[in-house]
Amino acid sequence: MKEMLLANSIAVIGASDKKGKIGNILIENLKSDNRKRKIIPINPRHKIIGGLKVFASVLEVDFKIDLAILAIPAEYVLSVVEDCIEKKIKNIVIISAGFSESGKEGKQKETELIKLAQENNLNILGPNCLGFINVSENINASFAKKEINKGGVSLISQSGAFVTGLLDVAKDGQTGFAKIITLGNKAVLDEVDFLNYLEKDTKTKVIGLYLESIKRGRKFYNTLARVSLKKPVLILKAGNSEKVQKAIQSHTGSMAGENSVFKKVVQEAGGIYFENLSSYWNSLKILDSYKKIKNKKLVILTNAGGPGVISTDLIEQSRNINLYDFNQREKRQLQKKLPSAVSLENPIDILGDADVERYQDTLKNLTKNKNIGGILVLITPQAQTDVEGILELIKHVSAKAEIPIFPILIGSYRDGVFQFPCEIIKALNLINSEKGSRKGIKKEPPKFNVLAPAKVRVLAERAKLEKRRVFSYSEALELTNYYSINSLNAVTVDEKFKFSSQTGKLILKVDDPKILHKVAQGGVKTGIASQAELTKKMKELRRKFKKEKIIAQEQIEKGFEVIIGLKRDSVFGPVLLCGVGGILTEIIDEKILWILPIKKEDILKDLKNSKLGKIFEKEDLKLEELVEEVFKVGNIGWQNNWIQEFDINPMFFYKNKKSIAVDVKVKF
Amino acid sequence: MKEMLLANSIAVIGASDKKGKIGNILIENLKSDNRKRKIIPINPRHKIIGGLKVFASVLEVDFKIDLAILAIPAEYVLSVVEDCIEKKIKNIVIISAGFSESGKEGKQKETELIKLAQENNLNILGPNCLGFINVSENINASFAKKEINKGGVSLISQSGAFVTGLLDVAKDGQTGFAKIITLGNKAVLDEVDFLNYLEKDTKTKVIGLYLESIKRGRKFYNTLARVSLKKPVLILKAGNSEKVQKAIQSHTGSMAGENSVFKKVVQEAGGIYFENLSSYWNSLKILDSYKKIKNKKLVILTNAGGPGVISTDLIEQSRNINLYDFNQREKRQLQKKLPSAVSLENPIDILGDADVERYQDTLKNLTKNKNIGGILVLITPQAQTDVEGILELIKHVSAKAEIPIFPILIGSYRDGVFQFPCEIIKALNLINSEKGSRKGIKKEPPKFNVLAPAKVRVLAERAKLEKRRVFSYSEALELTNYYSINSLNAVTVDEKFKFSSQTGKLILKVDDPKILHKVAQGGVKTGIASQAELTKKMKELRRKFKKEKIIAQEQIEKGFEVIIGLKRDSVFGPVLLCGVGGILTEIIDEKILWILPIKKEDILKDLKNSKLGKIFEKEDLKLEELVEEVFKVGNIGWQNNWIQEFDINPMFFYKNKKSIAVDVKVKF
Repeated sequence: MKEMLLANSIAVIGASDKKGKIGNILIENLKSDNRKRKIIPINPRHKIIGGLKVFASVLEVDFKIDLAILAIPAEYVLSVVEDCIEKKIKNIVIISAGFSESGKEGKQKETELIKLAQENNLNILGPNCLGFINVSENINASFAKKEINKGGVSLISQSGAFVTGLLDVAKDGQTGFAKIITLGNKAVLDEVDFLNYLEKDTKTKVIGLYLESIKRGRKFYNTLARVSLKKPVLILKAGNSEKVQKAIQSHTGSMAGENSVFKKVVQEAGGIYFENLSSYWNSLKILDSYKKIKNKKLVILTNAGGPGVISTDLIEQSRNINLYDFNQREKRQLQKKLPSAVSLENPIDILGDADVERYQDTLKNLTKNKNIGGILVLITPQAQTDVEGILELIKHVSAKAEIPIFPILIGSYRDGVFQFPCEIIKALNLINSEKGSRKGIKKEPPKFNVLAPAKVRVLAERAKLEKRRVFSYSEALELTNYYSINSLNAVTVDEKFKFSSQTGKLILKVDDPKILHKVAQGGVKTGIASQAELTKKMKELRRKFKKEKIIAQEQIEKGFEVIIGLKRDSVFGPVLLCGVGGILTEIIDEKILWILPIKKEDILKDLKNSKLGKIFEKEDLKLEELVEEVFKVGNIGWQNNWIQEFDINPMFFYKNKKSIAVDVKVKF
Repeated sequence: MKEMLLANSIAVIGASDKKGKIGNILIENLKSDNRKRKIIPINPRHKIIGGLKVFASVLEVDFKIDLAILAIPAEYVLSVVEDCIEKKIKNIVIISAGFSESGKEGKQKETELIKLAQENNLNILGPNCLGFINVSENINASFAKKEINKGGVSLISQSGAFVTGLLDVAKDGQTGFAKIITLGNKAVLDEVDFLNYLEKDTKTKVIGLYLESIKRGRKFYNTLARVSLKKPVLILKAGNSEKVQKAIQSHTGSMAGENSVFKKVVQEAGGIYFENLSSYWNSLKILDSYKKIKNKKLVILTNAGGPGVISTDLIEQSRNINLYDFNQREKRQLQKKLPSAVSLENPIDILGDADVERYQDTLKNLTKNKNIGGILVLITPQAQTDVEGILELIKHVSAKAEIPIFPILIGSYRDGVFQFPCEIIKALNLINSEKGSRKGIKKEPPKFNVLAPAKVRVLAERAKLEKRRVFSYSEALELTNYYSINSLNAVTVDEKFKFSSQTGKLILKVDDPKILHKVAQGGVKTGIASQAELTKKMKELRRKFKKEKIIAQEQIEKGFEVIIGLKRDSVFGPVLLCGVGGILTEIIDEKILWILPIKKEDILKDLKNSKLGKIFEKEDLKLEELVEEVFKVGNIGWQNNWIQEFDINPMFFYKNKKSIAVDVKVKF
């Protein structure tokens, strides 16, 4: 990666002398570096481009080339890559579009490209990308034509246009960049490779990712978990809705996993998840340009009541930041140099006629207070307000202060100054959200139930012989038994089955994987309390279900219903989930997710913070028992990662007896 | 009001010749009107200010004065107002601070001011305000020193600084104002008066309110309900959190009602409620400067995939707007003039090399489509993007189109253009939120239970004699009987009370208004099934509660628990509420509120849309029965508006029997 981002000799295949053409912008951008790197335009029909000697092919160049940038039609890319291989060029940036994002033929080309890369150990960025910009080292190997400030933000973006957009915002002169990488189709190099690189890049202070899909789920998870321990990683991901999934497919040719899973992955791995562009940008800006807040207790200093109270409301509504409470001594101290009408509750309102001196006296006092985490200074331009003077003062005080001072000039747009309080408050709240408890890479869990996976496999193979990908209830029961999950027993019955008054009431169920909605299809008969009823209900079932297996279960007392399940995410693999069952499922609308593997203490912690956990507490049910059962299901998923779906719905929990799984479904 | 806002002769008491002083800014602002209104500076120590003849007092002026503006220390205000009365000046703006917002003495002054106003029928704006600006008629009677564009936005603001802030944002040249009014302490004139005025003001297209408190709750509700039928009324209110209530008190000297109630008032009356400044401002801007969207189906046109999908996500997550679905014919039509690689799913991605022509062809096609509600055009500046050309094109096409076209220049700040998609999407979503179903003024409900209020009054008077403001259970039971609410009966018992096997199990409860938490204090004994148990439990109770009344109730089967209650809001009067009871109360966390009076069909509609309603449906309970009981409680509140709190908690609902109130509390 280093060799690519620090290349000393760079060939541009498809170089052009026509202004505005990508092949020309690339040459101009590369030339803008004042250090003398070798730039080699490649074009069979030219002799000189931009004052540089042109070669007809990389094979004609008689010195080493570190990096080749391809800006030629897709149809020529593969043969040029072969030239690069012959010339021993290991690093290639493919700007050209027309690969997996554009239909079957393109996909084929991309597959061949990947094959070439693997066989020859090539670092390929793209195709269908904008290139990269190593801002810290003055290498602009992209066709983004911008002057870019140096700074601590590094961007890894799947979309090129997303980057050009952000570079425009950054023109405010305050925020600067270290590395900017556009990934395009990610045929070879992806976000994981560059996260690895940026982790150690000393110029990178904060990492911003924009993603539309993930290629290597587990790898991404583990890498993010490691990198986010060292630097904040901010992630904006498109693809929360179905429509967007469609749009992304036509845009990059790849599918994203389910979004709730991705969000959970980011949180667990300690990244910061964003859903909109402006909060994302403001957060990058804050992390690059301001000191870190010392603690979560902020002070608002204002010269106007209205904006002050609006900001207070916003902070009070934020989960992760709050307002500093001044004690009486501090208030007396603040009061000394201020008019008596000033309000010293936080927000500190130093009134509409506040001049630079009044702001200065107050800021001086506040920055000395070791207990304050940061200061938001609201400036509402009123008749007597010296806006420039106050902004100048803030710059001056900020330079010496240990805590950040955020200037907000209400409503006015000014470079490097916030325009509305909600911008910065939202960003501060997100930046300071509690990081996943499971920071760092997950260790493999100890092996147990060593023999179970083989036994489960046997069940699946048997089902496959019958062309089934679903377990019957009896098979599912066997599976839960291997993992010590207490499940409601069932016996296969026929017309000769006799009622026994010792067992209490019975349920009859049709048990056939093809009957998916047993109740709705009339395949369940409950409350059978005598031989006569048994005979009658059995007949009724047989009228509808001629040959299907019928099972009998004891009709047990209803407990509190919980759903415990597993789903295989297309990107991140087995995901464990748990939620309230029964009629409350949709109303409480809470799905607690875990990326596997998982420790019992983490399950307990998350359940305690959940609505489900609160219901357990109020209903006097044992949460530890739920943790135990969820953990068992987690093991099923982790040890049998070919299972697509596993659902206990419901599992009954009781105050004074053991919980029991009432229905279990398995798909693979 | 007209005479104030259109005053032809205006006296400024406290006029000054010192630059920067409020008394000077006022004169300069008034002079900036090019029409020749009479401006009369009043100051005993000057002859000429700003080239105008100065008078020592209004009493020395020998012609009619329409409006007096006071910018003098608070201590002189009352005597000057008396001069104004003598001079027959009906309209007074008091800029001066130092009234109810600044402690006891100031409050006293304000009370006297109000008295003077009432006795002499004065229109007083303020005190502690910034004045007003009649932008449409070029009268700047404020000390906000700004050049202000004319347009359709009228602002009514309790905070002066809030207005100066917004005026700064509005410098983008696109949005303009009609009337700007700052209310200050609202001693006499308040938001209701100006809502009434703006309703008929032809220059006002959209009304923005910024409030920190409400003085006349019911009046506000009814006025808003009427005005919002004619013009959109956007309301931003500070005061969502406790801290803010404190800040507001020290800022304007008045208390606000509970915020959830205010929000409900705004929604019911058809206003649009905002919680942050930037959405509020963007919404005003959109309503003033753009055509109304024709329907809720929007199209996104973009030259970059990333920002396109982010916008799509945001729209898909919005409740009140969505994306237009193109049919095959429309897609073919769009495709005609576009390159084949273009994505024609909404968002329409016309690719990174899109030029003005491609934008033009697509926009032409889209604006012809009668089924589209509006268009968001995303411009991400890329190497080949002609930003100015595209913006010019949009202006041109917009002028002729029937639907609004919103230009968003990703990341770049440009006057009159949006910077981020989330800004405009949030605003469009809020603007188009479903208006309260009860638009228009509420009619008084038909009178019924005509005799009940008098009887309830008797109960209260009796309680008062015992120095109680709380009903005993027996009294509460009587009250519910008057309103035909089925409540669990109770008999007062003593040691001689005999157990009867016919009634089933019993509960004993201490019934004393001083015992607020009966269960926690050991005042409830349940499950009494025999004479022996009754005797034992009775003794146990008597050990703790020597003299208190003890009641016995039948222990009934538990039903689904619902809370139905009333609260007197300090501003809006009786508010009816309903929610899930029992252990789910906090977890479901849903309080359904109604401002009284209320119709049964509105209760039904709101309950159907609630979580509680969904539970009723799933549990097979009768929602109509709940509506009936809620309506009865509403009547209690409406007919006995001196009741402070009324709570049925819980009321049991059953599948197959009548609902019953199990515990009832009444405070007054």
